[in-house]
Order: sequence, then structure tokens, then C-alpha cells
Amino acid sequence: MMIIMQPGATQAQIDHVIEHVEGRHLSPHAIVGVEQTIIGAVGESHSVPTSVFETLPGVLSVTRISQPYKLASRQFHPENSVFPLDGFTIGGLEIPIIAGPCSVESRTQIIETAQAVREAGANALRGGVFKPRTSPYAFQGMGEEGLEYMAEARALTGLPIVAEIMAVSQVPVMVKYVDVLQIGARNMQNFNLLRAVGDTRTPVLLKRGMSATVEDLLMAAEYILAGGNERVMLCERGIRTFETATRNTTDINAVPVLKSLTHLPVVLDPSHSTGHFNFVAAVAKAAVAAGADGLIVEVHPDPAHAMSDGIQSLTPENFAKMVRQVKAVAEAVDRRLVTPLPLGEGQG
Amino acid sequence: MMIIMQPGATQAQIDHVIEHVEGRHLSPHAIVGVEQTIIGAVGESHSVPTSVFETLPGVLSVTRISQPYKLASRQFHPENSVFPLDGFTIGGLEIPIIAGPCSVESRTQIIETAQAVREAGANALRGGVFKPRTSPYAFQGMGEEGLEYMAEARALTGLPIVAEIMAVSQVPVMVKYVDVLQIGARNMQNFNLLRAVGDTRTPVLLKRGMSATVEDLLMAAEYILAGGNERVMLCERGIRTFETATRNTTDINAVPVLKSLTHLPVVLDPSHSTGHFNFVAAVAKAAVAAGADGLIVEVHPDPAHAMSDGIQSLTPENFAKMVRQVKAVAEAVDRRLVTPLPLGEGQG
Amino acid sequence: MMIIMQPGATQAQIDHVIEHVEGRHLSPHAIVGVEQTIIGAVGESHSVPTSVFETLPGVLSVTRISQPYKLASRQFHPENSVFPLDGFTIGGLEIPIIAGPCSVESRTQIIETAQAVREAGANALRGGVFKPRTSPYAFQGMGEEGLEYMAEARALTGLPIVAEIMAVSQVPVMVKYVDVLQIGARNMQNFNLLRAVGDTRTPVLLKRGMSATVEDLLMAAEYILAGGNERVMLCERGIRTFETATRNTTDINAVPVLKSLTHLPVVLDPSHSTGHFNFVAAVAKAAVAAGADGLIVEVHPDPAHAMSDGIQSLTPENFAKMVRQVKAVAEAVDRRLVTPLPLGEGQG
Amino acid sequence: MMIIMQPGATQAQIDHVIEHVEGRHLSPHAIVGVEQTIIGAVGESHSVPTSVFETLPGVLSVTRISQPYKLASRQFHPENSVFPLDGFTIGGLEIPIIAGPCSVESRTQIIETAQAVREAGANALRGGVFKPRTSPYAFQGMGEEGLEYMAEARALTGLPIVAEIMAVSQVPVMVKYVDVLQIGARNMQNFNLLRAVGDTRTPVLLKRGMSATVEDLLMAAEYILAGGNERVMLCERGIRTFETATRNTTDINAVPVLKSLTHLPVVLDPSHSTGHFNFVAAVAKAAVAAGADGLIVEVHPDPAHAMSDGIQSLTPENFAKMVRQVKAVAEAVDRRLVTPLPLGEGQG
Repeated sequence: MMIIMQPGATQAQIDHVIEHVEGRHLSPHAIVGVEQTIIGAVGESHSVPTSVFETLPGVLSVTRISQPYKLASRQFHPENSVFPLDGFTIGGLEIPIIAGPCSVESRTQIIETAQAVREAGANALRGGVFKPRTSPYAFQGMGEEGLEYMAEARALTGLPIVAEIMAVSQVPVMVKYVDVLQIGARNMQNFNLLRAVGDTRTPVLLKRGMSATVEDLLMAAEYILAGGNERVMLCERGIRTFETATRNTTDINAVPVLKSLTHLPVVLDPSHSTGHFNFVAAVAKAAVAAGADGLIVEVHPDPAHAMSDGIQSLTPENFAKMVRQVKAVAEAVDRRLVTPLPLGEGQG
Repeated sequence: MMIIMQPGATQAQIDHVIEHVEGRHLSPHAIVGVEQTIIGAVGESHSVPTSVFETLPGVLSVTRISQPYKLASRQFHPENSVFPLDGFTIGGLEIPIIAGPCSVESRTQIIETAQAVREAGANALRGGVFKPRTSPYAFQGMGEEGLEYMAEARALTGLPIVAEIMAVSQVPVMVKYVDVLQIGARNMQNFNLLRAVGDTRTPVLLKRGMSATVEDLLMAAEYILAGGNERVMLCERGIRTFETATRNTTDINAVPVLKSLTHLPVVLDPSHSTGHFNFVAAVAKAAVAAGADGLIVEVHPDPAHAMSDGIQSLTPENFAKMVRQVKAVAEAVDRRLVTPLPLGEGQG
Repeated sequence: MMIIMQPGATQAQIDHVIEHVEGRHLSPHAIVGVEQTIIGAVGESHSVPTSVFETLPGVLSVTRISQPYKLASRQFHPENSVFPLDGFTIGGLEIPIIAGPCSVESRTQIIETAQAVREAGANALRGGVFKPRTSPYAFQGMGEEGLEYMAEARALTGLPIVAEIMAVSQVPVMVKYVDVLQIGARNMQNFNLLRAVGDTRTPVLLKRGMSATVEDLLMAAEYILAGGNERVMLCERGIRTFETATRNTTDINAVPVLKSLTHLPVVLDPSHSTGHFNFVAAVAKAAVAAGADGLIVEVHPDPAHAMSDGIQSLTPENFAKMVRQVKAVAEAVDRRLVTPLPLGEGQG
Repeated sequence: MMIIMQPGATQAQIDHVIEHVEGRHLSPHAIVGVEQTIIGAVGESHSVPTSVFETLPGVLSVTRISQPYKLASRQFHPENSVFPLDGFTIGGLEIPIIAGPCSVESRTQIIETAQAVREAGANALRGGVFKPRTSPYAFQGMGEEGLEYMAEARALTGLPIVAEIMAVSQVPVMVKYVDVLQIGARNMQNFNLLRAVGDTRTPVLLKRGMSATVEDLLMAAEYILAGGNERVMLCERGIRTFETATRNTTDINAVPVLKSLTHLPVVLDPSHSTGHFNFVAAVAKAAVAAGADGLIVEVHPDPAHAMSDGIQSLTPENFAKMVRQVKAVAEAVDRRLVTPLPLGEGQG
């Protein structure tokens, strides 16, 4: 911890700070600069609140130096985390693509979509059954009935399924059905939910909150990892900025930044991060070029009639085209898409 | 709903859109401009997704015109909502001040603080017992034990108590103890939690999320109101911007904007919105000058030893000074602080 | 300067950094922490680029400790700068109000407005003659002709005049006519223009850029001060954030933050910072409550026919009402508005 | 123009608005919705300020429908603008790379860098001689002397040169030396400067301001195009957001968004948009994958001793590696890098 004194702080103030540092069983090291003095407080400082020093007379500010996350840190775990999902791995050379509708709307819709995205090259099926909707009057999802249809789609296509969990009470039903638990952007700092999924052993796709920093995202992952659930994928899905030309601003920088700070796989969601089907393929390619380990994309057989997010959903045809383009980019950066199962080899 | 056609859209495309409008049992009204055509779709359009039209050829964009919230809207309820808390009202002429520590840390700490803030002019006591901490390794609050101490502090001082609820499962214990349920910024779009507090009849202090727009905040309030809980206070607590000189940016504009859009009381939290005790009094005065109906302020008897947020906590002395200053400003804008109970008149 | 080593940096890397510190004639002070080492580089470090150290192996980051501005700093000049404009002072107890139209549109308009705002309590007249318009097709201002009308308005009312300068080449004509040179938000980092106004001895009203931090604003002021022009007023006029309910977000925190960092007067522009006449009075009151030293407000005799910014302009009647409200708030915080000249005394 | 009435606006208010629409020689078209009425005002509305209607009783808001830019619009010019620079084209299939130091620091430095970047695959040389520095005390550039060294570097390598212009008064000296005039982010809305470069016939690289929307950028381009200078390249260089892990946030969405809205070439600057050499290659690849037409990259022979921006500069070796990687991505998206001149052929 570094305690930066105000310019003009008196020696008595400096001594007083040093006394407080020692009182916390930390070792003080003063650096007397031309204008300001800085006092390093060395030792087990993690449990010492910065306010112990910030509120002392003559102190300008206090900075923690060490990263506040450990389990998520590449320092703690220098190698990439690579883990298997059903039939493929994430975090290694191959780049899986998760695709499907925003919401499960009917048995037919999800099964048709599953078949279409599988054929187009998807490796997992997404679909929401509990929907975080801004309006209490909007469609809130099909609930467990939707999960049953997703399970049926999995049986027919062999695609593992990804769905969003919104509440601690949904854990039992969700882990019964899904292969990957998604935490949505709005719940990224729902710490009770993070702890609850940390207690499961189901892989988690953790979406970045719309005003969460990269560090906030890693701290949220730390909650899950601290529970013993090691299979966490981080997902960049756009942040909120002043720009209104797109629904969100894809923080493409976050891809290499996260890859440098953490060993966890990094997935990008170009559907939410742009908000418009016209821009999805371009940003999907950019994500893979920048080093993303996976993609999650909204696809709907009939976007004009989607019950939510139609404008950002690709048709199966456009999705197939996107997959072909992404494949070329993946190979250009020495990665590859997942080799698809031969059609017909799902368990159905 | 207004459907804006691309410049150069063909008559066939326009006709096709009109057909779709009619297919949704809406009444189309085309306005042929010099460069672009606009098609109004009039009728019960609330349940029609915009994507029905956005994805049609030749369409540039689709805009909903009407406000997406109803119960929260001043249009629905032109008069200010004024409701009693224990011993005073909020939303009317008088301006209550809620004060107390970030976290309940011990029986002594909360009781001493309650007595100090009451003496300094506070009308309610805040204190966190379930704490939303960025780090899983940080102090997470005292839980129900903390609530017991708060109840004791209420008995001794007569101050009603405000505490944050973080999870649906905490509803029973929280409503047993607290007078006001606080929803924190990070849970503003935890829709399950919003619905759960909407089902109670305990007043709610709903904090704005750090990247939530004013409209998002009103939609979150709508979830609670839709459950039948009418006593919702909105709380501006700073938004996340590029500025790093303060922890958050107080959106002072939001005070008059909210007062124009909604009948609900608007409270401001200058402790979180600035993040530094030095700036709390200035922003508290600004809030009242701008029309806020209440304040919620962090006060700690010994900020240097607070377990959380010490740097933004006022000492009881500084809080008393702030109250005196705020009182003068309140009177300058034809409001008044709550007349305090004579000391000694709490139920204790 | 503090050089923070990566966790796991080797002793050889640390030694290498220390060598480089010495090579720059700075004195190295290493603090060996539990996880990381920090090296302070003490001495005349202002002219040493941080990249000298940032790019060395094993270095995580480099932080400058001292404030990058000097002349603007309260440390350099602990007392408030108080300086006279024509007939009043700014930076002391009294709070001047500058008012007038966005643009000078005609002789009649500016003279009528000047008389109306003077009567309502304004102490200076604003009006744009060179207009920074987003569109090349929009009205760009009346140029020197407008300045002549402003001078005439000054002669009639006694109000000193404030107008925006957009280019170095406008310095001679501007200093000939105006009492205060305004630098607009879009030119806050037009460093050539800053230097040019720094070379004049005309007071400057420097508006904060829409994505400028408080530090950026102070650095821009430093350019002007470094030229020897000491009469700089800083102006908060709203920053760009994700919120779209208002044109900009008034950063009210910036008022007490600036007052703590600098001795220069701080003015607030509630017209641009809200963008809507409905919210101007509330934010004007908030500004004064928070400690602002002055206000600059758009007033137009007929906002519906203003050539620019009509929606954020007050009518003279609403402006007069705002002045009365601001007066009460000013007195509540122990300040006062400028005592107006008796009407009829300005013809000098 | 669409005039949206408040819910509950009276018929008299609606009639009053219609009268004003007619008074402006526009044709009114009312759409009576369930909750609100909307009035379209059709005709030559460009010169009618929105405030004419916004300030009328009963009006909620007024929206312009048509794009405010024309010359920059793809609608006006559906084909990509492709134009030659010295030895290659921009805007077509080939993707030029501009590289060089932040600042020209000496004759040796710029000549060595020019040779190194040419060898590594650069097609043009960048280098600043007038530097927009936040601090008045920082190195402000070599001025015309620097331009002479750049010209010498061009003579030796054949690389056309790109340098930033900061002031109108620099136009004559700049057009004498440089092949491309760069407008920096801080001057994107320096409208006098935009007009001045619009009057030249030298190609312009226009950088997006750090809080400029895509529309603001296109309006700035419109200023230059309106002067008759058709060779404008737009440059995404990162926007200012709440994220502090990188210097700026690369708005990768802006690449496909701009390509859809305008015919002008789009260049990306991964050095400023990330602020750290570690992330430059990843974002350069992302840019090309997303459809960028060119790159501008900071390269310094000895970043640790650069006088500015060393931390974001690549070494020539890392730049060569980046070029190889970008080449593979360009080919994966059916583009190609510029075929370099044979070494030794640039002495003309």
C-alpha cells in the first residue's frame, strides 16, 4: 500500500502516519521526494482498509498496489485455463461458437433454430428462459417449460445448452438442465448469485456488466472461483458509453487486456455489443482477430417475429455466412473453429 | 410507433411496411417527406416488438413514442407522492435526512452512531448488514445480528431504520426488522429482487445503477410499483463517467428531470456520488437546492477505523455542520428540514 | 515518480531499473513489498518521460505523484484569486451572473436582451458572434458586426461583454471589443488558441471540454496562465456521458473539487449543462449551493425564434425568476449576488 | 421534422403547433395516436431551428429525421471513395499502413525510423512536428525543422508523409511539405481549422474526437468536404469511457458503422486507441477484420527514449511482426496489404 502525502505535509503528520502504519503491523518505508513524501506500508495489508490512512491529516491519497484478485489472475495460474464442454474445449486452440435465439419462444422455434445453427457450424445452443427485461410488462421467458424444450433440442442435435440464470432460487432447476450457466450483464455484481453458481460445478459464462471495468469483471469471476467452481468463461458484451450509433460499445481492447491479466477463456457477444444484425459479422471477425476464445451470437429463424432482440439477431443464412468468414480469420491468427460433428450424430 | 424509412426506400417497400402495420392491427399513417417517408403505427402497439418492422427492407429505424413506464409516471399521477415514514413524511415540503455508517460493525458502533446522528439532526438511521462488496475477501456484513443491533438503536433513538437487501431470500428477515428496504445500485436491475420487494408493503429506497439512465431507473421502480408497493423513493447516487477526480459523477440534472417525469420522491446520496468526505456537504446543499426530497449520508464515529467506505464518511461533527448548512439552503428554496423529536422521546 | 514492478520481477530487473533511474540523475528508493517491489525516483523528474521506465523489462506501470499544473494550483497560490471585471469582482463573496443570447442575431435583439437581462439582475452580457456549429450549413455568427452591436449594448446598459473566440486570427478584433474572452468547450485543447489568449491581458472564461477531466481543464488553464494572463475563470458546462435525458451531465462535483485544487474562480453554465430551459433554474441554484463563484446563462427575448439553442434559453421573465431564487440560495451559503447598478447608470 | 406532443396536449395546442408549421412554409401532417399526437412538418426544414416548435406549449420534443451530413453520406455517394496517395490507393481493396514516431525528435531518428518502417512494410511515414501536449511544459515539437527532416526521409525511402496540423496559420508550411494533413482528436471540432484544410487540396486524415459521436465525426468531415477537398480519411483512435485499463476504448463498432454511413475511407489507430504497445497488434488485426481501410501505428526505434508516447510505440521488430499478422488477417477478409516498393526504389 502506498500512502501519498500532500505537498507541504509536516514532519509531524508524516510521523503520525508512520505510527499508524506500525500500529497495523505493517512496515513503513518513507520516500522523501522534492515536493511530496510517499510512505510504503509493506506486509499483510489486504485486510487493512485504505481509510485507516486516507483520513489522517496530511494524507493526499492511498493506493493499493497488488491486484485485488488472485484465483482469476494469470500470475496465480500462468497457463491458459482450457476446459472441455460437451464435445469440444474452450481456452485452447479451438474457438467454439454458441448460437441461438434471445428467448426460447416455443418448442418448434428452439428445435428448428438448434438444427439450423448446428448445420451452420454452431457448437452450442443458447436460449433464454428467464429473461431480464427492462419492462415488467415485457415477455419474461418460458421458465422450466423452455428448459425442457432446450433439453429436447440438445438430444436432437448434440449441442450443449447455455441459458441465463437470474436468481439463486433457480439454481436447482438450471443445473438439472443446462451445460453452461450464463450470468447476465445486469447480474454481474449480484454477489449472492455469484456465490450460488460458485457452489455448483456447472461451467459459467459470466457477462461483463455494462459499466463494469475489466477489474470489476475479474473480481466477479473471483467470487465464483472462490466457491470452487473453476470453469468460468468471461464474456465481453459491450459497455455503455456516450455513443448512440450502436446499442453498446464493444470494448475490443478488453480482449487482449483480459488475456494478459487472466488465464480464463474470453468470449465475445457481438449481438449485444453492437445491437444490430448489420454489424455482428464484422465485430465477430474482429473479436477472433483480437484473440477471443469463443463467440456467442443471437440467431433467430424469423427475426422480424422474435419476441425480443430481433433487430440484433442473424438469420440462419447470415449466421452461416458469418461462420465461414470467422473461420478464415481464425486460421489467419493460427486458431481454428471446432470441427463440427457429422450431421446426424447428435444423440437424437 | 414511428417507422422511419431509409432515404430512397421504394414505394413497394413502403407498401410492404404498411401491410405489416395493418397485419398487427395497427393503423398506418404515412408522412411523405422531401427525403424520407415516415409511417406512424397507431393503436395498441405496446405488445408489438419494434423488430417486426425494423427488419423489413427499406426501414431505417423504429421509435416508440410513449413512455415505457406508467405507474411511475407523473402523467399517471400528477401530484407528488407524499408518504409517511416513522414520524415524518417524504415527498412533501419537509426534507428528511437519513444517516449512519456504511456497515453495522458492532452493537456499540451502531448505537453510538444512531445517538450521534439523531442529535445532529438525522431523521432515520442507515446501516448495512448484507454488504455488496466487490471483493469476495472483504467484510460481507454482520447479517441478522446487525439487524438486531439496528432495532436496538431504533428503540433507543426513535429513528426508523434503512438497510440494504441483496437477495430474495433475505425478504422475510429484512421486513421483520427494517422500516425501509434499500435496493443498491448493483441490484437496480436484479428483476427478481425488484419483484420480491414489490410484493412487500415495506417502503423502498431504490438506488440508481451506476450506468442506468433515468428511464432505466423509472422502469426499475415500475417493477416494484407493479407489485402493489407504492412507497418507492428514487435515489441518485452518482453515475460512472470518465472523470476520476471523484468516485462517481453526481448527476444533479437527474433531480429536476426526475421531478418532472415522476411523482415519486427523489433522494440524493452525496457520500457515494462524490466518494470523499470533503465534497459531501457541498453536494448535499446542491441536491436540496436542485429540488431533492431527501438525503442519505454516511456518518461514522471514527471514519479512519470504518470497515468500509471510511473515506466518504462524515464524522458526527461534520455531519452536524452539514445539517445546519442544508437547513439554510432548504429554507432558501421554501422547504424545511424535519422538525426533530425532542431528545429523549425515542421509544427507549 | 513511482515505478511499480510486476509481481515476480527478478532482482536483475529491479537492478536494471535502478540503474536507469540513476542514469537520469534521479535518486532511487526501493520498497520491497510482499508481492511487488516499488521504486521511487526522486529528484527533478518533470522532464523525464515515464516511458523511460515503463518500457523496461519487469515494470508494471509508472505513476507521477506531483500535480502536473503549478500556476493553477492552490498549492502555488493558497488564497482565492479575486479579480475585478467591470463594476464587480469574481472569486470573492459576490457572485456575478452573465446572461444573454447564444448568438447575436441583430442589433435590436442584442440591445433588447441586454436591457432585459440588466433589469432582471445580470451583471454582464454574453453573446456569440463567431459560432462553433456542428454543421457547416448552420448560422455561423455575425462576426465583427455583432461585436459592434454588443459594444453598443454595453454603452447603453453598462454591462461588460463576454464573447467566444474561435481562432488565433480573431484575437485583435476580439480584444478590441470584449471584456472577457470565452474559450468554448470544443476549443479547450486548442493549444495554439490557449497560448494566444494567454498573451493578451483580457480576462478569459475557459469552458471545460465535454470529455475533459478536471485535470485536463486545469492544464488548459495552465497554458493561459503560463503566458502571463492571470485572470482566468473556469467554467463547468456539462460533460458527455451515457445519459440522454439531458444534453450534457452537469458535473456538480467539479465545483467543490475545483475549489479545492485551484485558486481560480469557478463559473457554471446551467444552460449547456442541462440543455433545456426547464432545468436551468434548478441547476443554477445547485451550482451556487455547491460553491460556484458565478453563473453564465442563456437568455433570449423570444426563444422560439432564436437562431441557435432556443430550447435551452430562458425568457427574460424566467431569468428574472431564476435570479430571485439564486439570490436566496446565495445568501443561505453566505454569499451574495452583485448589487446591481441603479437602472439608468450604465451609459458611460 | 417530427413534433411529438405531450400526452394530454389539448386540441388548441395541436392547432397552434400546426399554425406555426404552416407559418414556416412547411406542410403539417398530424398522426393522432392513442396517447399522443405527432405532427410531421414536411418541406425545406433544414434551415428551420427545432426550437421554433420545441418551445411551444404542449410540445414534448422535436426530432429531425434526415441525416445532417450530405457530402459525407453514402446516400449521396453510394460507391466507396477510393483515392491515390503516393504509390498506393486508400478506400479500395488494398490496406495501407502508416507508421512512424509520435514526434520527430531529430534528423537521425526520423530517417532511421523511416527506413525501418519501410523495410517492415509501412506505406507512409507519420511524425509530429507540431505537438498538441496537455502540458505547456512538455516538448511541443520541432516545427518546420522537423518537416525538413521528414521531407528528407521521404526522399530517401519514397514514403509519403503524414503530419498533424494544429492551427490555421500552419497551413502554408504544412501543405508545402506533407502529403497528408492530420487533424488531431483535440481539434476535430476546431471548425476554423477544418475550413482551412477544406480549402487546400491536400488529403486529410481526420481523427475522431475523444468524445465525438460517429455523427459528430461525419459532420466534421462535412466541413472539409464542403470546402471542396474530397480526399478525407476518417480515423477511429479510441473514445473516452469509464474504463481505465487502457488509455482509450477502441470503438471497433465504429468501423462497420462508418462503412455503412459514409463512402470515405476509415483508418484505425491502435496505438492511441489502446495506449500500450502490448495491445497494438491485437487491435490492429481486429480493425482489419472489422473492415478498416488502413492503419496508423506509432513506431519508434527506441521507445524507452521517445520524447512522447513511448509506452504505446512499437519497436521496428514488433511492428514487422504486426505487419505479418495483419497481412494474414487482411487476406482472410479478401483484402490485401499494399505491395511494397522494392527496397532501394524510393529515392525519387
